[in-house]
Amino acid sequence: MTTAAVTLVETAVRAGIEVCFANPGTSELPIVAAMDRDPRLRAVLGLFEGVCTGAADGWARMTGRPAATLLHLGPGLANGLANLHNARRARTPVVNWIGDHATHHVGFDTPLTSDIAALAGSVGWVRRVRSPADMAEASLAVVEAALGPPGRVASLIVPADCQWLPGGGPLSRPPAAASRELPGGAVEQAARLLRGGAGALLLGGTALTERGLRAAARVAAATACGVWIETFPARQECGRHVPAFPAVPYFPEQARAALADARGLVLAGACEPIAFFAYPGQPSRVVADGTPLVVLADPEAGVDAAIALEALAREVNAPAVVAATPAAAVPFVTTGRPLDPDVLGHAVAAFTPEAAIIVNEAATTGLSWSAAHAGSAAPHTILGLTGGAIGQGLPVALGAALACPGRRVIAFQADGSALYTLQALWSMARERADVTVVICANRRYHVLQIELARANIEAGPEALSLTDLTRPAIDWVALATGFGVRAWSVGTDTDLAAALGRALAEPGPSLIEAVLH
Amino acid sequence: MTTAAVTLVETAVRAGIEVCFANPGTSELPIVAAMDRDPRLRAVLGLFEGVCTGAADGWARMTGRPAATLLHLGPGLANGLANLHNARRARTPVVNWIGDHATHHVGFDTPLTSDIAALAGSVGWVRRVRSPADMAEASLAVVEAALGPPGRVASLIVPADCQWLPGGGPLSRPPAAASRELPGGAVEQAARLLRGGAGALLLGGTALTERGLRAAARVAAATACGVWIETFPARQECGRHVPAFPAVPYFPEQARAALADARGLVLAGACEPIAFFAYPGQPSRVVADGTPLVVLADPEAGVDAAIALEALAREVNAPAVVAATPAAAVPFVTTGRPLDPDVLGHAVAAFTPEAAIIVNEAATTGLSWSAAHAGSAAPHTILGLTGGAIGQGLPVALGAALACPGRRVIAFQADGSALYTLQALWSMARERADVTVVICANRRYHVLQIELARANIEAGPEALSLTDLTRPAIDWVALATGFGVRAWSVGTDTDLAAALGRALAEPGPSLIEAVLH
Repeated sequence: MTTAAVTLVETAVRAGIEVCFANPGTSELPIVAAMDRDPRLRAVLGLFEGVCTGAADGWARMTGRPAATLLHLGPGLANGLANLHNARRARTPVVNWIGDHATHHVGFDTPLTSDIAALAGSVGWVRRVRSPADMAEASLAVVEAALGPPGRVASLIVPADCQWLPGGGPLSRPPAAASRELPGGAVEQAARLLRGGAGALLLGGTALTERGLRAAARVAAATACGVWIETFPARQECGRHVPAFPAVPYFPEQARAALADARGLVLAGACEPIAFFAYPGQPSRVVADGTPLVVLADPEAGVDAAIALEALAREVNAPAVVAATPAAAVPFVTTGRPLDPDVLGHAVAAFTPEAAIIVNEAATTGLSWSAAHAGSAAPHTILGLTGGAIGQGLPVALGAALACPGRRVIAFQADGSALYTLQALWSMARERADVTVVICANRRYHVLQIELARANIEAGPEALSLTDLTRPAIDWVALATGFGVRAWSVGTDTDLAAALGRALAEPGPSLIEAVLH
Repeated sequence: MTTAAVTLVETAVRAGIEVCFANPGTSELPIVAAMDRDPRLRAVLGLFEGVCTGAADGWARMTGRPAATLLHLGPGLANGLANLHNARRARTPVVNWIGDHATHHVGFDTPLTSDIAALAGSVGWVRRVRSPADMAEASLAVVEAALGPPGRVASLIVPADCQWLPGGGPLSRPPAAASRELPGGAVEQAARLLRGGAGALLLGGTALTERGLRAAARVAAATACGVWIETFPARQECGRHVPAFPAVPYFPEQARAALADARGLVLAGACEPIAFFAYPGQPSRVVADGTPLVVLADPEAGVDAAIALEALAREVNAPAVVAATPAAAVPFVTTGRPLDPDVLGHAVAAFTPEAAIIVNEAATTGLSWSAAHAGSAAPHTILGLTGGAIGQGLPVALGAALACPGRRVIAFQADGSALYTLQALWSMARERADVTVVICANRRYHVLQIELARANIEAGPEALSLTDLTRPAIDWVALATGFGVRAWSVGTDTDLAAALGRALAEPGPSLIEAVLH
């Protein structure tokens, strides 16, 4: 008998789904069985759902195509929601298959029953499979919804009986051609603003591809405009081979200072910069009220910012090529120094292998890393924490590594954030993912200590204890070993260099705990 | 200046909140500062929000009073939702303080903005603080909502400006007197059903207090009725000193067989038994259609089932005391046997110290544990997985230990489930919680393997890989060590007995990995 779960899987595979990051339960077993018989779909087990959803995000950021997740009812979805929030903000296509009780069972309100649609709806598109006959269309629709553009988190709620009952044949249809049309007048408006002098370009989304960055450099060469990158890009090409631009700083007073001279802002794949958090007496907006904003490429509308920037370059008669002065590699000379964020950031940049993928969840340790160091590194791709929900880094690194065999992933990772989803280490070991995890072990929630000081809050022992990770200190070598990942702890530049050399030379995952002083 | 965050905390403390399980972010710092200045509120840091919410559940199950949690915006709440789901199903009072962006900031849809109310509403009561002037009333209302009865998960969304702006004085009012009135006619109806012969009592909620169990034994002595306990009680008194009754089995065909002779069911603090999951061709209900059901004490209405059972005992002219034949302790004789679920369950029962709290998330290893072993143990309290969302055990054990200093907590814990919220180990170490964790290391999702077999699914390598935790095997001693908890791995009854002896004799947390064969 062919079950409707087979229909689900076959339709999804035809629509381009190659991998499913899964944490199934009893109500998803027919889907497990269907994946079992289809060698075209790779099933990857996560010990916690946040690992699965983050890995799906990482996979799709690198391939442009969605991965599937398999989640167990409402609580399984709930455990994966924070990283789905991040995927939503990054506009990553993700397909969730969420099991539910059989249609005749759900009304009995048994223990695991909950409002799955409310949870799934909070992060994007959602549809419930109504019957086995509905399955093929539903399976295709959820992939199409995820693909957008823009990319979306799309969830399919799949009652158990709609999995186990006989299903129809799979469905497929050609993908909709993405509209590449630029909104009328935007290019001309942007050109006028930048030609007038003292305007700035703000790059995000697809503007941060190599193509987009080169076009932005041409625009800057022709108009002398400033160019900025959004604070937390989902994906950015970086390194000595591409033009480098500074990121809008995280703290709003710094961001305001950075953009103070901009008389107008052209938004290319980015949204208007807004303070990440609100502060007493401070405006939320980073640019002054009344500053002209031109939306050159709206990421929500799925407009390709790289194409828009090329059109803008033509409009401003930019040179065809800007001869970039490639930043020189900065050798990492070891002297036995203790580690601080700058030394650590320099080492990561110096050791970055060609075509590496750097997953940046280094929090305060990495706040200024990209500007200070990444530009001098070998060509690489950066994946950032666009959504702000910490605990993304290790799962995204897992997904990116499986998406790109042959490319080394460096998870540049804050210690506090890594602890949310450390179970990803086990999946890295199981899948032999080429991930080098660098834990920035400052043993505190440093950003909270900074924010307490900024707010002039005199923190007593109770408040400080809530920002402190030293009592007891976490032993990352032990944690990694427990999950089957080899690990070293280092406290000096010399030991760090040796560990990075070893870790990057061998296949499979490893972890370096870099203890900061 | 006294901030409205101080108003929040002072009002909550007056209403009985003593502890806050916290994982704050920037938008909750005024609450952190307010907790700092109030020594009556203990702040306990969790490395992951599921630890905080589960610990609040454990605390309240043991004290009857809610703890607070402090969660960072929507993603922080999302990470805690699965254990809030469990608390909801257990009818545990829990108070969540969830930070939100300042009221003037939230409309900018910055990265961490999400629909907090939708998430919080999925697990219970929710209110948003409208202004600093609204804070005192809101802080009191959320505690009252949590207390019920029945106990509830109650969430307060607290925008950052409503924390940092000046606040008014705290508020308090006397707690509403709980109505103890039994619904008219229920006692008489129940008596009629049981006197007729072949009826059964199903106990849950407060029927599982010592008082309720003794009353149920008296009813059984007078009517010869069967007595059953709900499959996953939130809290149950257990051991040689109280009457022991069997639990309704987990698998529905076994549950149906167990209740096949019951011509009617009297529900005392329990709901009608329904299959946990649906299966092809099987009914969801465990008792036959048409079986008379009498609701003696509806847990959703907050009726105290122990009081109702005492009224029922009077109605059926039960003897005032039933002389229980106390089960004999069964000594644990070691012979160097390898460990299996029965040996392990026997050991846990034999080593249980007087007044222990046993948190039972042992999954398949513990499915028959209570009936086979717990009755022979020293007096203890069992906390179960009422809501079915795995990852509850370690956090609940943490909360129970902090609630009951001087009582030993045993976390009887499945390995797969423990991995969802293993970060709780660190908080146990930090708070020196008297928790002995016993990991039932069968290194598989055993229930899924059982269910695959029951469904006649011939599992191939892909399906089996999704139920397997051996590739690589998880090293629990390393994981515990990484979080500052001492640990041993044992594979025989002799080593298990030695480890239990050591672990239970010393203060503070420890972990025993019991490798099952």
